[in-house]
Amino acid sequence: MKSLVLERKDDLSLRDVPEIDRAEQDLGPHDVRIKLHTVGICGSDVHYYTHGKIGPFEVKAPMILGHEASGTVIETGADVTTLKPGDRVCMEPGIPDPNSKATRMGMYNIDPAVRFWATPPVHGILRPTCVHPEAFTFKLPDTVSFAEAAMVEPLAVGVHAATKARVRPGDIAVVLGAGPIGLVTALSALAAGCARVYVTDIAEKKLEIAGSLSRAITPVNVTSENLVEVVKRDTDGWGADLVFEATGSPRAAAQIFEPLAPGGCVVMIGGQPDPISYDAGAAMVREARVENIFRYAHVFPRCVAMLASGAIDVKPLITRTFEFDDSVHAFEVAASAPPADVKMQIVLPQ
Amino acid sequence: MKSLVLERKDDLSLRDVPEIDRAEQDLGPHDVRIKLHTVGICGSDVHYYTHGKIGPFEVKAPMILGHEASGTVIETGADVTTLKPGDRVCMEPGIPDPNSKATRMGMYNIDPAVRFWATPPVHGILRPTCVHPEAFTFKLPDTVSFAEAAMVEPLAVGVHAATKARVRPGDIAVVLGAGPIGLVTALSALAAGCARVYVTDIAEKKLEIAGSLSRAITPVNVTSENLVEVVKRDTDGWGADLVFEATGSPRAAAQIFEPLAPGGCVVMIGGQPDPISYDAGAAMVREARVENIFRYAHVFPRCVAMLASGAIDVKPLITRTFEFDDSVHAFEVAASAPPADVKMQIVLPQ
Amino acid sequence: MKSLVLERKDDLSLRDVPEIDRAEQDLGPHDVRIKLHTVGICGSDVHYYTHGKIGPFEVKAPMILGHEASGTVIETGADVTTLKPGDRVCMEPGIPDPNSKATRMGMYNIDPAVRFWATPPVHGILRPTCVHPEAFTFKLPDTVSFAEAAMVEPLAVGVHAATKARVRPGDIAVVLGAGPIGLVTALSALAAGCARVYVTDIAEKKLEIAGSLSRAITPVNVTSENLVEVVKRDTDGWGADLVFEATGSPRAAAQIFEPLAPGGCVVMIGGQPDPISYDAGAAMVREARVENIFRYAHVFPRCVAMLASGAIDVKPLITRTFEFDDSVHAFEVAASAPPADVKMQIVLPQ
Amino acid sequence: MKSLVLERKDDLSLRDVPEIDRAEQDLGPHDVRIKLHTVGICGSDVHYYTHGKIGPFEVKAPMILGHEASGTVIETGADVTTLKPGDRVCMEPGIPDPNSKATRMGMYNIDPAVRFWATPPVHGILRPTCVHPEAFTFKLPDTVSFAEAAMVEPLAVGVHAATKARVRPGDIAVVLGAGPIGLVTALSALAAGCARVYVTDIAEKKLEIAGSLSRAITPVNVTSENLVEVVKRDTDGWGADLVFEATGSPRAAAQIFEPLAPGGCVVMIGGQPDPISYDAGAAMVREARVENIFRYAHVFPRCVAMLASGAIDVKPLITRTFEFDDSVHAFEVAASAPPADVKMQIVLPQ
Repeated sequence: MKSLVLERKDDLSLRDVPEIDRAEQDLGPHDVRIKLHTVGICGSDVHYYTHGKIGPFEVKAPMILGHEASGTVIETGADVTTLKPGDRVCMEPGIPDPNSKATRMGMYNIDPAVRFWATPPVHGILRPTCVHPEAFTFKLPDTVSFAEAAMVEPLAVGVHAATKARVRPGDIAVVLGAGPIGLVTALSALAAGCARVYVTDIAEKKLEIAGSLSRAITPVNVTSENLVEVVKRDTDGWGADLVFEATGSPRAAAQIFEPLAPGGCVVMIGGQPDPISYDAGAAMVREARVENIFRYAHVFPRCVAMLASGAIDVKPLITRTFEFDDSVHAFEVAASAPPADVKMQIVLPQ
Repeated sequence: MKSLVLERKDDLSLRDVPEIDRAEQDLGPHDVRIKLHTVGICGSDVHYYTHGKIGPFEVKAPMILGHEASGTVIETGADVTTLKPGDRVCMEPGIPDPNSKATRMGMYNIDPAVRFWATPPVHGILRPTCVHPEAFTFKLPDTVSFAEAAMVEPLAVGVHAATKARVRPGDIAVVLGAGPIGLVTALSALAAGCARVYVTDIAEKKLEIAGSLSRAITPVNVTSENLVEVVKRDTDGWGADLVFEATGSPRAAAQIFEPLAPGGCVVMIGGQPDPISYDAGAAMVREARVENIFRYAHVFPRCVAMLASGAIDVKPLITRTFEFDDSVHAFEVAASAPPADVKMQIVLPQ
Repeated sequence: MKSLVLERKDDLSLRDVPEIDRAEQDLGPHDVRIKLHTVGICGSDVHYYTHGKIGPFEVKAPMILGHEASGTVIETGADVTTLKPGDRVCMEPGIPDPNSKATRMGMYNIDPAVRFWATPPVHGILRPTCVHPEAFTFKLPDTVSFAEAAMVEPLAVGVHAATKARVRPGDIAVVLGAGPIGLVTALSALAAGCARVYVTDIAEKKLEIAGSLSRAITPVNVTSENLVEVVKRDTDGWGADLVFEATGSPRAAAQIFEPLAPGGCVVMIGGQPDPISYDAGAAMVREARVENIFRYAHVFPRCVAMLASGAIDVKPLITRTFEFDDSVHAFEVAASAPPADVKMQIVLPQ
Repeated sequence: MKSLVLERKDDLSLRDVPEIDRAEQDLGPHDVRIKLHTVGICGSDVHYYTHGKIGPFEVKAPMILGHEASGTVIETGADVTTLKPGDRVCMEPGIPDPNSKATRMGMYNIDPAVRFWATPPVHGILRPTCVHPEAFTFKLPDTVSFAEAAMVEPLAVGVHAATKARVRPGDIAVVLGAGPIGLVTALSALAAGCARVYVTDIAEKKLEIAGSLSRAITPVNVTSENLVEVVKRDTDGWGADLVFEATGSPRAAAQIFEPLAPGGCVVMIGGQPDPISYDAGAAMVREARVENIFRYAHVFPRCVAMLASGAIDVKPLITRTFEFDDSVHAFEVAASAPPADVKMQIVLPQ
């Protein structure tokens, strides 16, 4: 079975990975075997391809890419009760230690032992089948397509951020950054009750997409507009109840409290490789709450339910689709993608 | 200036109320004078008309009805800074003691000294003008009509309920009762992040309206369907994260924990004249949280913002409009209203 | 190995239970074997003895009693990492399904599949040894005695109640009922930040014990004093921030909102066999929050830490101790216990 | 009437301030006149004395110092209902605009219009009498001395920090800094439910005082011990649930997430004049919550209640007392105070 393998930085190939084929012959009692259908290309996949590492995670051996996935159950372990062959599903890519303290307290995402697809040395799922625990595999209703289901993984980041923010109905939010994570965060913040979301970026094309998603989204191009002035003008000088940081840029982080209202909340989403510097006084005079988030927990079935009911629509974010046989090419495109593309996906042969 | 006066139970007239005209000659430094535009008819207005009292509040002297209102500022007090003549506004009908402990702690709605329009002995605002504090008068953007603005008052009940529920994105909710408050609660719960809301009633017509508001609303006619079975079937036996009680019926309250998921929350909205009896064990084995709410606080500007951005659409709930000169007739209709009508409004001459 | 067996209602014997001896020969990789040291007598143990059942749980076959326990690890399973032979420990008596949805969300106490010691048909631990999962066995520091450690189980109920109440420093609380659960709740509420706790009962002797625990506890004998008046007098008419129901009496529950302050919280602890009836209006005008609790989760290590540091002192609650050989007699005493006794314990031979 | 006047940096005098005497002749209907009894010397008073400014607040005209105060009511305004002459009281030094949005939402401490004693250009109260609003003047029970009452102001900072932290019973906390604010924070964290508090400093004398306050406080001298190692060792590698920053040092802030447990909370108390730099990744992998606090709100009566009931004891922190006539000398001592002194107070003639 061919997989999309990152042999090393800048070197991708579609080829057999025999040890994975062998490993997958075992199906534990709580596992299901899944035929992959659609896999989204994440910025981290591209980054491993172009840089060979992210922070401390380095590609030291060939690794299969891909972690945003949907598919169909084709076999179930002996003790599986909630899924059966033929069920269409999406899968959570991180598997924690079920006995860790963090997991038992309901915070499995911050269990240090989490094994996460396509994070070295764990293989991803750009391959025909995979074996996965039932507890992290979620059945799709008929109304949710495979393409939408493969968007649940990035969407979960936004929904988790909005959950941690504890959005109250009618809140005004700012999302810094109109990349894929910024956009799912904006959609999640709206779905979670925000009356209006200001989305910032420096790329006009991305802002156009943001603005097209909802009339409750106001794009702000920070190369030509002053975010703080815009927000204060629209809120009688009070500020935004929530600010979501989705750029990963220390410059954005340095001024994150400026547009925030008294008693407001900042949510840090974007990974920040370097130390962040900020004005502590600006945080204090507002009694700002800051929530730092890391991936998501217990959010996948919620995302599926919201896609099914129309509470969130991610279809406009899926801007290009490739065949699995073209997946090396897909990554070349993604690595040089113009900002007009939000999410590219790869569809496997069925 | 003619007002709609409830002289006593079953006796309405359109007539001058001289002492109100006199009282309104004074405009305090923090007050504004408002020309009324649209006033909604609330179930409590109708109840005073048909029964002469609600609980301990009894109509012992002629009282002007009406408390769901929008209008236009025509004069401002000396210290008013946020409003000017010509501003279109909606008004919060309850005015607390600004120095009470509850008010200072941010919970002015449970200040026992609140004076609330059309709650004896306080007059309502079915009359051409009124004087109101700036702090409880909220400017409307151009995109919110007077009719929508007069819906802010009932909507605020739903939004407050959803706020207290602390809805998390993707929650499943049940709303018991498809009357006006049930429907604004369902809309508020969806706007606040619910993936799906089950709305129950026994009147098929009301359920049809509920179901037409959103494809994320599932009507359940409890005369023919078993709510608990429906919810459990759709949630793999887990139950609903939230149950909102909007019937005021002790029978509904008695079984309110049955459809609730472990760790879920019940919100009691509907006023209950008689003691409620319930199975404490059902609440305990779920570790249910119960929030009892009373009107709303700090919610009006949030409602206006959500109407403006399209996060909530109340227009389908406004089913009939009367001229002010026909307002006695309007109340006769409302008192015998078929369930097809959700909200009736009265428009004053401009 | 002799165990204390409830053969049937009113019939206790100290005798071998061969099937338990056999079952305990197996030690799973995540289990530890414990030599029991001290076991407290709980009201539920006594109730099974005197009535043969509690609600739906009926003693249909001989059952070993006891679930409040401390002891010493004498053997560890292959994968145990946090405990070793010789460690002094206390044990959580309920073991959930590690794969249930409730457990994964951190609420294992409301997993319906919990197996709980001395709740039919599960045997308790009034016997020389037991086998228990490492994850529910907690190491004791030297400063915590076996007797105190056997108090962790009832204390955990109070600490869980205080946690759910979200006590804020300086809160005023009422605890209804001065039985063992009422007293551990009062101690927990104080440890959690309350400035003062009013404890009510009708038995003067119990109230004397309550009052002796701390000068921040005010006993109120409701046969001679009016609780609401006392609380209102001491709080300038505002009321108590928190009311904990620990009587299990529907009469107490019926008036539980009367002493509560606006915005306050009621915590329902005591099991209520019959439906509760209450005045919904009293709950609403205060916007009362109600937390219903069921046992506890993630609380044992917190209790151990608080006993170790002196934040809570349970020693005054341990009023009588029996030898294991006298345990039938101990239950006879407990079944007819004068209110002067709070907690009786049984010590096993070492 | 003589006041302690900071004429300019380094220049204090005891002299009449005629314009204050004149201003105090007016007593508004909601005001009380208070004879001062005890006034604590705060680090900010000393800083104005030695530096002439704190951040943007600069002493440009003579200013009376002092804001930690207790006294006796000697006259009441026409509408005062809760106080009468002879009442012993303590006073909150910041008076917000009662009509500001922040105040109405219950967060008056972050109302930008707050007027705060001894913050330029507002005079403090190191003078015989003052006029103050009833709403910010709190009656003392007989069991709370004037000296303890003058400690309520700094204590309120610690209690507010512990409230914002949402301490759960049994939490493990770290307090960075053993100055007066660090110590009241440690006491507040314990009173709020912590099982253990690690207090850090570099001055051994301060740590000795910290350690003497409670056996639940563990002093850590960071010149000789590694805080992270100490905390991890005592918590099986998990870390502290809460970290309170009370040094105001950017170096401490830079590493504040290191000792924190997954899901833990950091509370920033100490004012930080310069930008803070920190490792965002350390915050994210723990999903740390950060609360930034500014003074306190609604906390004074809670502090009084806790002092009255013994929940908190601040007496060991009052290490030296001066007569009002010696107050210039008192400030000279305070400005060169050895670390053995925690809180110095000045007593006015009665």
